[in-house]
Amino acid sequence: MQYQAVNFAAKFARIPQPWQPRVIAEMNDYQFKLARLDGEFIWHQHAETDEAFIVLAGTLRIEMRDGAVRLGPGEIYVVPRGVEHRPCTEGGEVKLLLIEPRGVRNTGETGGDRTAPNDVWV
Amino acid sequence: MQYQAVNFAAKFARIPQPWQPRVIAEMNDYQFKLARLDGEFIWHQHAETDEAFIVLAGTLRIEMRDGAVRLGPGEIYVVPRGVEHRPCTEGGEVKLLLIEPRGVRNTGETGGDRTAPNDVWV
Repeated sequence: MQYQAVNFAAKFARIPQPWQPRVIAEMNDYQFKLARLDGEFIWHQHAETDEAFIVLAGTLRIEMRDGAVRLGPGEIYVVPRGVEHRPCTEGGEVKLLLIEPRGVRNTGETGGDRTAPNDVWV
Repeated sequence: MQYQAVNFAAKFARIPQPWQPRVIAEMNDYQFKLARLDGEFIWHQHAETDEAFIVLAGTLRIEMRDGAVRLGPGEIYVVPRGVEHRPCTEGGEVKLLLIEPRGVRNTGETGGDRTAPNDVWV
């Protein structure tokens, strides 16, 4: 039997809108999500879990209350649980791979109109 | 404060040997590991956990008892828990990002002389 890998580029072609994370794989109770980002997100936190960001294209700045981290393609940063953060793109669209437990909401404990549907596969 | 992202290329420069996974980041009780692969590994399984493979460079074939999956750069595959598998490179070195719970041994339940030191950071 020929099993199939999941190709990031093929999945991104099916994700037209920014700020709409889509699940592409699961590992135990964790999910791998792809997202396009463009512009500034809102301040939020996840009290119960760390959240891993891997940038595939573009430049991402994750603001935190006491500083920031900048990620380019081929870089990872893990935002610790309970740390308020705000992802912002620099100079155009970012393609992001996000890894976190199943059920984590993109707007964390802040909620509001930037909240995306959760657990949607592509 | 300027926080620092972890750059895959910079870390790979410090991992000269194949089949020696090195930890570069943690998320809750999970670890992100980089590894160079070259040639064939041994058959093994992890009874307690799934294991996620993301290929960054090269072509990886993961053989399973009833088939195989082939991954190129920008592709992910999750080997389910309890599934015997054997990673093999095709046509040269593979640079791999591995995600799994802390404490997982590279040779799983098989062990033996291909077992790498575990939980070593780079």
